[in-house]
Amino acid sequence: MPAWSELSKEDLRARQAELQETYESYRQRGLQLNMARGVPGLDQLDLSEGLLTAVTRGDACKIGGVETRTYGVPEGLPEAKALMAAIMDTPPDTVIVGGNSSLNLMFDTIARAMTHGMGGAQPWMQQGRVKFLCPAPGYDRHFSVCEHFGIEMIPVDMRPDGPDMEAVRSHAADPAVKGMWCIPRFSNPQGYVYSDETVRAIAALTPAAPDFRVFWDNAYAVHTLYEDAPALTGIWQACARAGHPELVIQFTSTSKVTFPGAGISALAAGPQTLAQIKRAVSFQTIGFDKLNQLRHVRYFKDIDGVRAHMRLHADILRPKFETVEQVLSEGLADIASWYAPRGGYFMSLDLAPGTARRTVALMAEAGVIMTGAGATWPYKRDPRDANLRIAPTYPPVGELRVSMELLCVCAKLAYVERRLEESDA
Amino acid sequence: MPAWSELSKEDLRARQAELQETYESYRQRGLQLNMARGVPGLDQLDLSEGLLTAVTRGDACKIGGVETRTYGVPEGLPEAKALMAAIMDTPPDTVIVGGNSSLNLMFDTIARAMTHGMGGAQPWMQQGRVKFLCPAPGYDRHFSVCEHFGIEMIPVDMRPDGPDMEAVRSHAADPAVKGMWCIPRFSNPQGYVYSDETVRAIAALTPAAPDFRVFWDNAYAVHTLYEDAPALTGIWQACARAGHPELVIQFTSTSKVTFPGAGISALAAGPQTLAQIKRAVSFQTIGFDKLNQLRHVRYFKDIDGVRAHMRLHADILRPKFETVEQVLSEGLADIASWYAPRGGYFMSLDLAPGTARRTVALMAEAGVIMTGAGATWPYKRDPRDANLRIAPTYPPVGELRVSMELLCVCAKLAYVERRLEESDA
Repeated sequence: MPAWSELSKEDLRARQAELQETYESYRQRGLQLNMARGVPGLDQLDLSEGLLTAVTRGDACKIGGVETRTYGVPEGLPEAKALMAAIMDTPPDTVIVGGNSSLNLMFDTIARAMTHGMGGAQPWMQQGRVKFLCPAPGYDRHFSVCEHFGIEMIPVDMRPDGPDMEAVRSHAADPAVKGMWCIPRFSNPQGYVYSDETVRAIAALTPAAPDFRVFWDNAYAVHTLYEDAPALTGIWQACARAGHPELVIQFTSTSKVTFPGAGISALAAGPQTLAQIKRAVSFQTIGFDKLNQLRHVRYFKDIDGVRAHMRLHADILRPKFETVEQVLSEGLADIASWYAPRGGYFMSLDLAPGTARRTVALMAEAGVIMTGAGATWPYKRDPRDANLRIAPTYPPVGELRVSMELLCVCAKLAYVERRLEESDA
Repeated sequence: MPAWSELSKEDLRARQAELQETYESYRQRGLQLNMARGVPGLDQLDLSEGLLTAVTRGDACKIGGVETRTYGVPEGLPEAKALMAAIMDTPPDTVIVGGNSSLNLMFDTIARAMTHGMGGAQPWMQQGRVKFLCPAPGYDRHFSVCEHFGIEMIPVDMRPDGPDMEAVRSHAADPAVKGMWCIPRFSNPQGYVYSDETVRAIAALTPAAPDFRVFWDNAYAVHTLYEDAPALTGIWQACARAGHPELVIQFTSTSKVTFPGAGISALAAGPQTLAQIKRAVSFQTIGFDKLNQLRHVRYFKDIDGVRAHMRLHADILRPKFETVEQVLSEGLADIASWYAPRGGYFMSLDLAPGTARRTVALMAEAGVIMTGAGATWPYKRDPRDANLRIAPTYPPVGELRVSMELLCVCAKLAYVERRLEESDA
């Protein structure tokens, strides 16, 4: 069989007819699958059932002298700070433990910078145009926070070892550039891990804006699929060595450790940034849900408890990621590229330029909802219309296999259509 | 015994000596009591022990087709919306259920208005000076949110039937006035309930600013101490009748129903305002803690469950409020005034002008921390230095009695000192 790129117009027409027929047979199956979001499967939720009974008595709600049922301790239980610090590989005194959503902590951090500024500088709302660096493909909810606040997004090329640091350094020379989104371990959507060199280069950044902050969303810090998954150099340690303690604000959560709807979140920052955040938080709330923090502390005890728990997740997820890898290898090796991650929640699929939207539309018509094409780019504008995010975690392996086989059919159909259009043009 | 106001200078000196001696005897007891905040007692927390075991199994986490452990449903479980709507006396479709803190919902609502405006108008940060009406004495955390955002506060006289509506109407003619804080039932700190007439007058307001909103903090909606406690006219119904569906944003929480640290909160608003809030929330979080919403739904079932639960709270709190009332009546009837509320969490004590700060300082020196004098006023500036907030809920009755007896001694001592200073001047 000739390579796809060498097919003649007649070959393409023949392929199109075959693919169309296969596609129709999928369509007639009346599939109803949603692969749009990175959601743990029900079996994964059941792994944390013990969290529900980690605190069942009123007289068990106190820890270290703190009554968790009542008001107070807005920076979080010391024991919860220690646990979340261990996940982020940062000292406990750099940490605030929040509610159930690290996205909310990131949103609030930007909202605060808009109204009150960052690190003593003018509020971003009073500085005119404000820009953020967005390694792309990246996480759509990071980008939509920027869009909500009217922050201009500058895409930066994302590579297997992290963002293109030459581009980052060059853009950071613009004082309007106030931040950068990073998912340093098992990036969303690629599953890349920033190299030691990249981490050190980020810590060594000297942006023109004194109120520039790296938003270090370590969402998948402990989400390894394989024991040999690459480790991440500690950003706190790297910043300390570089003499830039205020440069990075770290975020994490247990959303994909325990329950996405009822986990706990945390942020970590340098002493001045942290003091500013604590002060603002003291106006915002009398304290986050400490009882749920206590549940997590009692359930996991320490970071070893978290790691053991994550191995149970990995046992469930590994076959799913390997199914995707296998189906793609069999079906799309010729016309697409992807990376087989060692952890995280996603895979990134690069199709032939100009075919991602059409592929997603074809899948939707056949009953499988994917993350929208373009969603991995700022303003949902993928300049090549090539990138798709695959979220293999939620469906059972059987459904996942069907979806991925359908994906191969749709991507090939979109490819053939595109080639035929080009040859007609 | 002559009335205090008729005492001669010599009488005052004699009283001062006696009071000083009594005060010393308190001081030597080495008391260590904190009456600063409105915190439920431990016995009240124990009333909600069943909440801890309301959801203990993974297969019990689903309700109405919604899996509460996972992401989604940012406006809250329908069942939780119904419960919180019943507490606020508003239709469920006006409601969003939030995290553990209604203060956070109020803070976020103002933060959003600062950055994105309210009801389609310009962001408050771009409108120059923005002002809020603050019925005073009032709740310090409302005022500190305004202060945090640089919103100018205008005190409005607070009366037993609600704020001075003539003053409110007059100030609302200024387009820079964007809102008003209200605690309509069992106001903090007085325990007043807005009259039907006041509620209707608020609903009928026609402020100059189209982005003016009443922040209706119904924190004590169900917190009755006596079965005959005055009811509150429904603000949603009043606004609907007045044709002002967007005028009021309501807030409430279960902080003082279940657990202050681990309850659930809610807001309710008119259709346009609600749509704007929902849109912003969709950028802010993937959903609040639905599992804790489910706990509350399972534990209370409905509003009758809440009411029955609140009667248990009232049984604990009534003797405390009555102790305060009794000690004040015996000790301060001559030189102070207060109101015996039928519900809520606080009492407001009006001392002789110029003696509140001194009274609090004397108490602190004797080991009893009160809410700071002035805290009930915008910018912590009580123009008469007269008002104190009493929070009777936390200490056991015995400790509460001692504190209140000490308060009488300190208030009288401050009174005598003040009178002597005046006669020396």
